[in-house]
Amino acid sequence: MAVYTEVTDEALRAFLSDYAIGELIAFRGIAEGVENSNYALKTEAGDFILTLYEKRVDPEELPYFLGLMDHLAMHGLACPTPVAAKDGAALRSLCGRPAAIVTFLPGVWPRRVKREHCAPLGQALGLLHRAGAGFGKTRPNALGPQGWAPLLDGCRARGNEVQPGLIAALDEALAGILAGWPAPDTLPAGQIHADLFPDNVFFLPDDQGLPRVSGLIDFYFACTDLYAYDLAICLNAWCFDAGYQFQFSQARELITAYCAVRPMSQAEIDAMPVLCRGAALRFLLTRLYDWTHTPEGALVTRKDPLEYLRKLRQFLQITTPEGLGF
Amino acid sequence: MAVYTEVTDEALRAFLSDYAIGELIAFRGIAEGVENSNYALKTEAGDFILTLYEKRVDPEELPYFLGLMDHLAMHGLACPTPVAAKDGAALRSLCGRPAAIVTFLPGVWPRRVKREHCAPLGQALGLLHRAGAGFGKTRPNALGPQGWAPLLDGCRARGNEVQPGLIAALDEALAGILAGWPAPDTLPAGQIHADLFPDNVFFLPDDQGLPRVSGLIDFYFACTDLYAYDLAICLNAWCFDAGYQFQFSQARELITAYCAVRPMSQAEIDAMPVLCRGAALRFLLTRLYDWTHTPEGALVTRKDPLEYLRKLRQFLQITTPEGLGF
Repeated sequence: MAVYTEVTDEALRAFLSDYAIGELIAFRGIAEGVENSNYALKTEAGDFILTLYEKRVDPEELPYFLGLMDHLAMHGLACPTPVAAKDGAALRSLCGRPAAIVTFLPGVWPRRVKREHCAPLGQALGLLHRAGAGFGKTRPNALGPQGWAPLLDGCRARGNEVQPGLIAALDEALAGILAGWPAPDTLPAGQIHADLFPDNVFFLPDDQGLPRVSGLIDFYFACTDLYAYDLAICLNAWCFDAGYQFQFSQARELITAYCAVRPMSQAEIDAMPVLCRGAALRFLLTRLYDWTHTPEGALVTRKDPLEYLRKLRQFLQITTPEGLGF
Repeated sequence: MAVYTEVTDEALRAFLSDYAIGELIAFRGIAEGVENSNYALKTEAGDFILTLYEKRVDPEELPYFLGLMDHLAMHGLACPTPVAAKDGAALRSLCGRPAAIVTFLPGVWPRRVKREHCAPLGQALGLLHRAGAGFGKTRPNALGPQGWAPLLDGCRARGNEVQPGLIAALDEALAGILAGWPAPDTLPAGQIHADLFPDNVFFLPDDQGLPRVSGLIDFYFACTDLYAYDLAICLNAWCFDAGYQFQFSQARELITAYCAVRPMSQAEIDAMPVLCRGAALRFLLTRLYDWTHTPEGALVTRKDPLEYLRKLRQFLQITTPEGLGF
């Protein structure tokens, strides 16, 4: 739910006068996106999304994010395309914050994931990885393996309030995951989305009524990291049922469709069990950190860290790629 | 910020199949509206708003609200028009809640009210009152004068925590307002909006760039009450600056434009000072009630009741209609 900055009419009109997208028709806050203020913007030229980047986004990183979206869209991926103003710049300023307009994408994100979403998702992830090749900028993954020990340290004081013994269990899991993590430069890497959860993937039905991906959104965790790790994140986000039980058949659909677009090496496949554990730990740790650092009464929805503890425990039991669906 | 109910794809598609508005193109939660879940819905037929009515709305009252919007739109007012499904009914059910689709209105609500908004607002309020004539249903104003003493009683236990002495001051103000309130059937009454705050009024610029009203929304406080009381609510909502100082020139613009569309009797004009105090007290009391009854940590933005104490105190000093701008 995200509108942190209210934009006055005068500021909006002055901002839009720098663009060649016609007169303003409508402007409504959107109840999606956690990090930034998002508005649905309608002008004579069509529908757009206006984003004001709030304090959790480093302005220095915006050229990477906007540049990546532009590159991906130019290379055929259905993703928001930054709209350049008359002077050619897409990254601008509104109400004292960095701001950008991107194109509106049709589609609906699945509130309940079904098996039939997983193959189109896998295909879209493969297309994303292929489309990102050749993009010149890089961004380290701040929430990658080297970030997990500091995150866990930040949870140490209050983490066991969430569940007794949690911190000791995470210490043990982290040590095992880091020991098994692929050495640098041994697996293919490039631009990854790193947060491809269901609310970031829009679908529309095809001619047969089956879901097809109409667009991928929210590239503000995108970074330069292992392609296979992005797939591991999707296995975490899309291949569990509402009771957090791993769904092998969904994973198999996702993996098969992904590999059909971007074939994986044996080394990548062999790394998948530890990458899945790492991805589970990454979301567990950020949720745990938010949980233990959100003041009582804050106007923020805290996501349950224990969902990812359950996922992590299942991935700890899956020791071969075949167990994941390879 | 309002999305309380998540609608699954399957439920949404089944719901839309009852309508003749084409295929679904997009569906996004809207971060506006406090009482209900609101979604921006795009289909092949255009843009709509889908509302799921949450528990604070009495389902028995929905035929009044939807019927009034339909009547007003049929009589030329720019307001959301309920969209009937193939069977002719606009009030339906989705995810176990009453639900309706209404038309999308262009325009932007003013985050900062300026004097030039007030004349178009007054004209729109007059048109609303005229368009409502002939609507057959009535709805008592649950938040009218007879509701204020019970509301104040509900704030008695914790009201002074907001400001020492507040409850005693409100007891005194309430007694004075009720003593001066117009006797039943002495002033013209009809369908009123009763919540025509800036976020419920959309504007677009006219050919000269001046704001004109493009639509009025959110009729879920509408009721059958004194027309002049609706004007008094607007004087509270639109005619104070950011420091809560009464703005006579804005009030004069609002009143003059309103009276040009619906001329007011001398009895109505004479009642305006007490009606303005009553309207200030009404919003003070509901905000105070919410403030003192919202649990710590609830995911709800509490509006400041003291804003309306400051407005009430100024209206207590304005004893003649001329002081308001008549």
